[in-house]
Amino acid sequence: MNSSHKTRTVFFVSDGTGITAEMLGHSLLTQFDGINFHQVTLPFINTPEKIRDCVEKINKVASAGNGKPIVMTTLVNSEARHLIHKANAFSLDFFDAFLKPLEAELGVKSTHTIGRSHSAVDQKGYGHRIDAVNFALAHDDGVTDRELAKAEVILVGVSRSGKTPTSLYLALQFGIRAANYPLIPEDLDRMKMPKPLVPFRDKLYGLTITPERLSEIRNERRPGSKYAELSNCRYEVAQAELLMRREGVKWLNSTTKSIEEIATTIMQEVKLERRTY
Amino acid sequence: MNSSHKTRTVFFVSDGTGITAEMLGHSLLTQFDGINFHQVTLPFINTPEKIRDCVEKINKVASAGNGKPIVMTTLVNSEARHLIHKANAFSLDFFDAFLKPLEAELGVKSTHTIGRSHSAVDQKGYGHRIDAVNFALAHDDGVTDRELAKAEVILVGVSRSGKTPTSLYLALQFGIRAANYPLIPEDLDRMKMPKPLVPFRDKLYGLTITPERLSEIRNERRPGSKYAELSNCRYEVAQAELLMRREGVKWLNSTTKSIEEIATTIMQEVKLERRTY
Repeated sequence: MNSSHKTRTVFFVSDGTGITAEMLGHSLLTQFDGINFHQVTLPFINTPEKIRDCVEKINKVASAGNGKPIVMTTLVNSEARHLIHKANAFSLDFFDAFLKPLEAELGVKSTHTIGRSHSAVDQKGYGHRIDAVNFALAHDDGVTDRELAKAEVILVGVSRSGKTPTSLYLALQFGIRAANYPLIPEDLDRMKMPKPLVPFRDKLYGLTITPERLSEIRNERRPGSKYAELSNCRYEVAQAELLMRREGVKWLNSTTKSIEEIATTIMQEVKLERRTY
Repeated sequence: MNSSHKTRTVFFVSDGTGITAEMLGHSLLTQFDGINFHQVTLPFINTPEKIRDCVEKINKVASAGNGKPIVMTTLVNSEARHLIHKANAFSLDFFDAFLKPLEAELGVKSTHTIGRSHSAVDQKGYGHRIDAVNFALAHDDGVTDRELAKAEVILVGVSRSGKTPTSLYLALQFGIRAANYPLIPEDLDRMKMPKPLVPFRDKLYGLTITPERLSEIRNERRPGSKYAELSNCRYEVAQAELLMRREGVKWLNSTTKSIEEIATTIMQEVKLERRTY
């Protein structure tokens, strides 16, 4: 069905949250230029009624004549999979392709249990995540020096260099206790790390950013301020990088990186192990 | 190779962050009981040296004799894929299986561009995420009533019912601006929604929790307090549910649900559309 429509509807269908299907599906779709994908997620498709509704939705798009819909599924229940793949669409199932070969390799049958991956069944891993989120919030932006010893990593950098979203992502995605601590003008003028961080030098990881981007971001928050001025941003970034270099603190430039890329790089460089999946 | 070792090492190998490989891989592995999987992520495998190191690591595990390693890859570069799949392991590539059929269906060749999915190239989507995280933090726990009109959803519930991690996840994963606002004892005694929420009733979504679990969580924070007492938790939860019912606020019980499940359910019930992938 070599139909090169400019817009194609893609359904991510799952008997769980659909997050896995969305993520792999989106990765695959980014490999195709020139097509506009209209992406629809249908989660928790786990009853005959929901399956029927889902097939109807897909078929409705099919009969609209704007290109065959694409259906990407992570369906554990093989009957549901069978029914949904009967819809008038181009279908790919992300589990089916791999479960059979894995069963053969492992010498074990798969359990076909729905909703295992993003469920709270792993209570220990789940507790780690919630603790890590609370820790990140309690230690955001240097709000307290208490219990910094419990941090697995302490992010440092000038204001608006990306520390907060990164600490939160490390907590939510990997269950890592990440504090973050700002390098403020006083620290940069005297070229010294904030005192509370001195005992934890081996846990520090720096984020830096280009002065141009920093100035843009700061101008959104405080338009026309000295804080946001390009010359001030240039000074702060240069001093912060010099300070981190002197103190032997590793860092990365967050300017063109996504939160995922920043967090993954930190996991690797600080040799952290994820505590949750 | 039907070798049923009790522990198997699984490598997630990617030329990007490896997050997609981890997520699908983990979903697949949760379908197999009785095997302990030692999971190792090797991200950013994008140079000949890194590929060589990676193959060495895999082969080292293979020669240790504790079962053949399992390698799950999301490698865009087909040469890298070819080299890594020559390692002594049972290998599955999550892109290869689907890109060819998608190319045929779409009538377009895939671009083989590395790191598209978790990169910051989609600047607009990326801005949404950062804005949403800032919004969630600024509107955590009812800290301000300002700009509540800009919220796409306002989570309500008693203290420690799961509102904060959920708002942050909605922001980071879906780019949704989620505020959260506590129902405090005063609200519950007078059986009225907090006044600042009244104009936004159609944006409210409730989280509830079993009194037993709530008491456990609160006891971790304030052991032996009235706040944590089971009888008090029973009162607060019963009043909160009654209040939400009266006010026509939809809610879910977060007790046995993961953050992903809670967030996905809210997306669906409030009919929110994700602003980022």
